[in-house]
Amino acid sequence: MKFGGTSVADVEHLRQVADRVAAAARGGDEVAVVLSAMAGTTNQLIDWTREMSSLHDAREYDAVVSAGEQITIGLLAMALQERGISARSWMGWQLPIRTDGVHGSARIEGIEGAEIIRRMGEGEVAVVAGFQGLSPNSRVTTLGRGGSDTTAVALAAALQADRCDIHTDVDGVYTADPRIVTAARKLDRITYEEMLEMASQGAKVLQTRSVELAMNHRVRVQVLSSFNDTPGTLVVDEDEIVEQAVVSGITYASDEAKITLLQVADRPGVAAAIFGPLADANINVDMIVQSASPDGTSTDMTFTVARGDLPRVEDVLARHRAAIGYQEIISDGDIVKVSVIGVGMRSHAGVAQRMFAALSEKGINIHAISTSEIKISVLIGAEYTELAVRSLHSAYGLDAA
Amino acid sequence: MKFGGTSVADVEHLRQVADRVAAAARGGDEVAVVLSAMAGTTNQLIDWTREMSSLHDAREYDAVVSAGEQITIGLLAMALQERGISARSWMGWQLPIRTDGVHGSARIEGIEGAEIIRRMGEGEVAVVAGFQGLSPNSRVTTLGRGGSDTTAVALAAALQADRCDIHTDVDGVYTADPRIVTAARKLDRITYEEMLEMASQGAKVLQTRSVELAMNHRVRVQVLSSFNDTPGTLVVDEDEIVEQAVVSGITYASDEAKITLLQVADRPGVAAAIFGPLADANINVDMIVQSASPDGTSTDMTFTVARGDLPRVEDVLARHRAAIGYQEIISDGDIVKVSVIGVGMRSHAGVAQRMFAALSEKGINIHAISTSEIKISVLIGAEYTELAVRSLHSAYGLDAA
Repeated sequence: MKFGGTSVADVEHLRQVADRVAAAARGGDEVAVVLSAMAGTTNQLIDWTREMSSLHDAREYDAVVSAGEQITIGLLAMALQERGISARSWMGWQLPIRTDGVHGSARIEGIEGAEIIRRMGEGEVAVVAGFQGLSPNSRVTTLGRGGSDTTAVALAAALQADRCDIHTDVDGVYTADPRIVTAARKLDRITYEEMLEMASQGAKVLQTRSVELAMNHRVRVQVLSSFNDTPGTLVVDEDEIVEQAVVSGITYASDEAKITLLQVADRPGVAAAIFGPLADANINVDMIVQSASPDGTSTDMTFTVARGDLPRVEDVLARHRAAIGYQEIISDGDIVKVSVIGVGMRSHAGVAQRMFAALSEKGINIHAISTSEIKISVLIGAEYTELAVRSLHSAYGLDAA
Repeated sequence: MKFGGTSVADVEHLRQVADRVAAAARGGDEVAVVLSAMAGTTNQLIDWTREMSSLHDAREYDAVVSAGEQITIGLLAMALQERGISARSWMGWQLPIRTDGVHGSARIEGIEGAEIIRRMGEGEVAVVAGFQGLSPNSRVTTLGRGGSDTTAVALAAALQADRCDIHTDVDGVYTADPRIVTAARKLDRITYEEMLEMASQGAKVLQTRSVELAMNHRVRVQVLSSFNDTPGTLVVDEDEIVEQAVVSGITYASDEAKITLLQVADRPGVAAAIFGPLADANINVDMIVQSASPDGTSTDMTFTVARGDLPRVEDVLARHRAAIGYQEIISDGDIVKVSVIGVGMRSHAGVAQRMFAALSEKGINIHAISTSEIKISVLIGAEYTELAVRSLHSAYGLDAA
């Protein structure tokens, strides 16, 4: 059982978490709990590190910001004990949860679960700190934003848990963001592959890395509400879903920016000249479109990056202008990427065509397209976000009856 | 260098600590720093544990409240790095600082200093979390109030440091509380034995346990200000003090309470009947006075305890009334213990007499007396505190010229 967000915001909410965990334990489940820090605490700690130093030593940053989870796990263990449930807290270094040494965004390499399994067998609830681990040098690491989801899935894998319940502020995975599409429906089940694309393409309900882990270790994940007992959405293997819709959901990501290099020489090696320096600067490039070269000598190159990286991208391109040989840079932060996701599209033709037709019907211009086996993404003007998501939700027959 | 109190209260003060440590490191010192938590943080954490549960599992309490030091050490390491000083933070479990398993008031059993010594030799400043350690079961322990002083002294012993500088909100050890005695003088040197008595008898400048440790390991401790470079007070061996005054200081402790049992049977075993149950309840009894028994059959027994223990004492005595056989309990929280301390009194006669005369001259009645080789304590009415301390300070020639 993983709890984060509002459900660990203060002592009062932690008490409610204790009630839920106690009910599960009394019901006969062997339970391990993973907790985030109180949101206020982590933000305060991050602010202090920024105030203290512009040069972040990521190892010291991790030492500071990992203090938050140790507070919530200790408090929850106390609350469980008060409810007559045997419980103890576990910090990342105590299990340990071993990670690589990439501070601030470490990857879990292994969890030693034998002692927890033994104690769970004796009825003790394990209350484990999310988000944190132990580096090969015995320093505290953190897993990056949303890392507690990853801790929960990795722990579930290590414990060979029957299920990993991720309790959140929403009550499941929806066919689209319900704040935009009132007709959006909660999905009972979704495949790992679809959940992975949804997480990568803007749905904020689970961290991408946690879904990858769940898929690789075949951990049955349930996304459900922290605040009620309604069943949520199960993330499972494709063969567990009998009636597969062609499209399962529509997502949008509005934190991207588009860059166009005008009149790039149309010669072998030019893509490497552009994207090599960006990769060296640790900038992820998402969609890439190279326009046709009418005269065979020059072309325009368009690509997208995270909006926060835009200033660095412009800087890198300016410094490599001579090597690349472009005439002008045009950047546009006022765009959104809308994606249609579904494993059913593997076996159905015309899925992309329906998307293009629906957008065209509303007069929405497409700046770029990228596809995978189970996803089609288009780049459009940000002002069309709601219109596009609603139109697509309807066009694929996802609207609630 | 140990910093606590106001000097670690926020980011701004931690920056000033960083400046002082950086100056020492640049001056060629090999430096280890021990820090307390921000006072506000620790109080918040303690409040949360109280809100969460009235049944404190001390192991979970320690997990929660030890979060504070990890924040200050990470922040200070960052600030030192920004000043061009190589530094890293060390939590209690990382060194480790091994303690016994008495959570909430653990005792340090050993510190593994080899790695820190090696790194200090390479110019790296060690920034160590005070107040916390690692139990034999690999749980986090805390050392109790003022525990960071103890960490600092224990670390200085493990590193065979030339000196252990305890930076505080005051600039040294005074002959009396300067808020009461304007003529109080800062002592240049004081012996371990005197410092130990002063700490036990109410002077709040160092934690008693830290002085014991310093004495046992012959660590040269300096108590000095966090805020200026004035030399403080050195706590040293008696043979390092050439001109020893008879009395070094006057202290007072106002957190005690007096209890009198009227008409206790004057028979063998009655003291055991009273103090046995109190010891079983973990209540420390300080001064004990048994009045003369005029008729040989009954007597009055007076003793003092920490004022916070008073309700529990009354409860224990009521429950054992039959076994003890007293007529009435009279308790009085309105008292103070004033002590005169000095190693010089070993070799000088008449020291106690001067105390009794000075108090008598001011019309102050003495309720109880206790003495050690280097200390005389009297119990008097709380309203006489300032008058008594000032009169004694003057009577022993301690007033500044």
